[in-house]
Amino acid sequence: MKLNDTRMFHAAGQAAVGGAHTKPSGFESRLLRHLLRSLGDAPLRIRLRNSEPVSTDGADNAGGIRIANWSTLVKLFINPDLYFGDAYTDGLIEVEGDLVKLLETVFDHRRRASVPFFGGRSRLAGWMNRSRPNTRSSARRNIHQHYDIGNEFYRSWLDPRMVYTCAYFPDPAMTLEAAQVAKMDHVCRKLTLNPQDTVVEAGCGWGALALHMAARHGVRVKAFNISREQITYARASARAAGVERRVEFIEDDYRNIDGRYDAFVSVGMLEHVGQHHHRELGRVIDRCLHRNGRGLVHSIGQNRGVALNPWIEKRIFPGAYPPTLSEMAAMLEARAFSVIDVENLRLHYALTLEHWLRNFEDARERVRAMFDERFVRAWRLYLAGSLAAFRTGELQLYQMLFTRDTSNDVPWTRAHLHEKAAG
Amino acid sequence: MKLNDTRMFHAAGQAAVGGAHTKPSGFESRLLRHLLRSLGDAPLRIRLRNSEPVSTDGADNAGGIRIANWSTLVKLFINPDLYFGDAYTDGLIEVEGDLVKLLETVFDHRRRASVPFFGGRSRLAGWMNRSRPNTRSSARRNIHQHYDIGNEFYRSWLDPRMVYTCAYFPDPAMTLEAAQVAKMDHVCRKLTLNPQDTVVEAGCGWGALALHMAARHGVRVKAFNISREQITYARASARAAGVERRVEFIEDDYRNIDGRYDAFVSVGMLEHVGQHHHRELGRVIDRCLHRNGRGLVHSIGQNRGVALNPWIEKRIFPGAYPPTLSEMAAMLEARAFSVIDVENLRLHYALTLEHWLRNFEDARERVRAMFDERFVRAWRLYLAGSLAAFRTGELQLYQMLFTRDTSNDVPWTRAHLHEKAAG
Repeated sequence: MKLNDTRMFHAAGQAAVGGAHTKPSGFESRLLRHLLRSLGDAPLRIRLRNSEPVSTDGADNAGGIRIANWSTLVKLFINPDLYFGDAYTDGLIEVEGDLVKLLETVFDHRRRASVPFFGGRSRLAGWMNRSRPNTRSSARRNIHQHYDIGNEFYRSWLDPRMVYTCAYFPDPAMTLEAAQVAKMDHVCRKLTLNPQDTVVEAGCGWGALALHMAARHGVRVKAFNISREQITYARASARAAGVERRVEFIEDDYRNIDGRYDAFVSVGMLEHVGQHHHRELGRVIDRCLHRNGRGLVHSIGQNRGVALNPWIEKRIFPGAYPPTLSEMAAMLEARAFSVIDVENLRLHYALTLEHWLRNFEDARERVRAMFDERFVRAWRLYLAGSLAAFRTGELQLYQMLFTRDTSNDVPWTRAHLHEKAAG
Repeated sequence: MKLNDTRMFHAAGQAAVGGAHTKPSGFESRLLRHLLRSLGDAPLRIRLRNSEPVSTDGADNAGGIRIANWSTLVKLFINPDLYFGDAYTDGLIEVEGDLVKLLETVFDHRRRASVPFFGGRSRLAGWMNRSRPNTRSSARRNIHQHYDIGNEFYRSWLDPRMVYTCAYFPDPAMTLEAAQVAKMDHVCRKLTLNPQDTVVEAGCGWGALALHMAARHGVRVKAFNISREQITYARASARAAGVERRVEFIEDDYRNIDGRYDAFVSVGMLEHVGQHHHRELGRVIDRCLHRNGRGLVHSIGQNRGVALNPWIEKRIFPGAYPPTLSEMAAMLEARAFSVIDVENLRLHYALTLEHWLRNFEDARERVRAMFDERFVRAWRLYLAGSLAAFRTGELQLYQMLFTRDTSNDVPWTRAHLHEKAAG
């Protein structure tokens, strides 16, 4: 995928591209070099307006960053992690060359140079970048901000079932739609669902998995979500599919889950739970799972327990925190669950994001009409940044299967996950 | 498997079985009830000499414990975790009924009753039960105590290749020998070995995996172990198999591993490394793995980070500590490794132990001739206790596959692990 960002650059503050290149002043150079250092000295050209770029070694064929004005440069100096995204959104940063590639290069080099990738460089930046809490009321606000911006928007670039989590591609050439169905089947196989089972789902999105489990596996599902738009959509889908008697969509917080179930499943919610609430989620799972129940948590993860990039946390996913594998395991160990199986699908998420980004670019005129150019740029950066993060190993995707430690009701091997589907 | 222990009971202190059953005194009853409570009030009959047993509800068809004398009862009162094993070894505790079943019942009930299962009940017991360190010199002593007691002994109950770790049974009915080969293949498939690869193995036992990797996958292996008897045996096997130019067995500590390799593998060593040395092992792996290298650690684990049962730690496996999954993950996260896959083979270890225990009982006359009756009883208790621990979820068995976080050189799915073997 090549996204030539300059093509789309037409926001305020743009310097004349064809203008004469002036030499940067000594102070300007120093600031730009400082900025390059904070990007791990990745091979890059970087310049202010249309002055000559400052660059790192090996930057000849690399991408470039153009900063529109002094005030943006100063903001980037103070807090690059937050302002890079904001300035990009406002069109005050222009990326020359492939956006995903540039971000990958920066991620790689920052990590190798041990520049603290996420989080601010100063106390001021630390304070600015603090993340939002996930109490019941804040969680509702946080989720509303991301998921209630219009189903039409999401429909324009997700698969037809509106699955907004990592897909599973048994064959990398398969369509996104097929890969999302394969993911749901993969999850159901891991959970070894039987028709008489009851399932509770924590964070059900637009309801695709709940509907799939009810329609394909005949189970009864209670699915929880605090996004009103998603729940409304999911209920309509259940009626349309004729499974509304087997699937109940409940607009409520995971902390309010009651009853006992044969299976607990949560795909793409743990990232929103936040690290201070892992134990709370563990308690909920413990409370709601039968003695021989199975559970599966599917979540974005990371190898270092650091805060999410502050721009993503503030502008895109308020309150989000990708757990480490050790944190996920500790959450379950605290309630005496045994982890049976962990699969890392990081590269499947990168491929999922390639599909989403391509679909998003194809739909960008419609998206611009629904919102504005700033929105298009912010979401492009978020999707491209996520793709780069999964490709470079900044982010992981874990599916973790577990049972109570006292249960021997587990599949003998994992071979059944890879048998050809019956139907 | 039924092991009727009374059959084999002929040690000192045995009361006349056919004698008249006297009523226990009030004090005696109170001590026995206290002991039952410390066993989680598992359904059991327990008695001193040939007095009437004290029992819990539902103990009608349950097994029983007979304590030979007052001094044993007092020792059990002070430190049951350590002295149960010692008294059993000395024939001062007799188990009536199936030993494995009795241990399973106790494990289950102690956990449900939240009686601290491992570790002592008092400061005195805590001090008595402290575990041994794993510095380089102590590690050598610790390993010597378990693994250098004679290859003949191990040959009498292990499979022909002398694999002394959890097997993998794609079909539960297969032989132990076939399951050990299947385990080695499973490990090699997870590591996606190529003939040009170099592999380092930390803790190689009698060398079966190193020989298998060299013979079946054509790789070059350096295998480390601090057990002299095992290394000597492994070198002879390499010569016999004609692979001595591709496999080098090195009698040295894992901390002294040098060089760089395409794969790191360690099967059944991490339990002996000890929790204070996890980070050290992480550093060793980091130092010795190529940029696109793969690593696999196979280890006994547990859900709670508690010390091993002190009798096992003192009499059988000095210095051993089964890590939790979160501790294993943290060890790798600290060196920026990404975990790709975790498989829990707990029930495969239970089945492996059923084979070992059956073989051991078949060989017990020979074992008694090599050592003595005390040795036979100690090893029976250790094998039966391990079987019960894996069956009841007290212990886990994790295979953890990982790469550097920057490597995208990982299998796309896990389907290749379950394809029919070519040869």
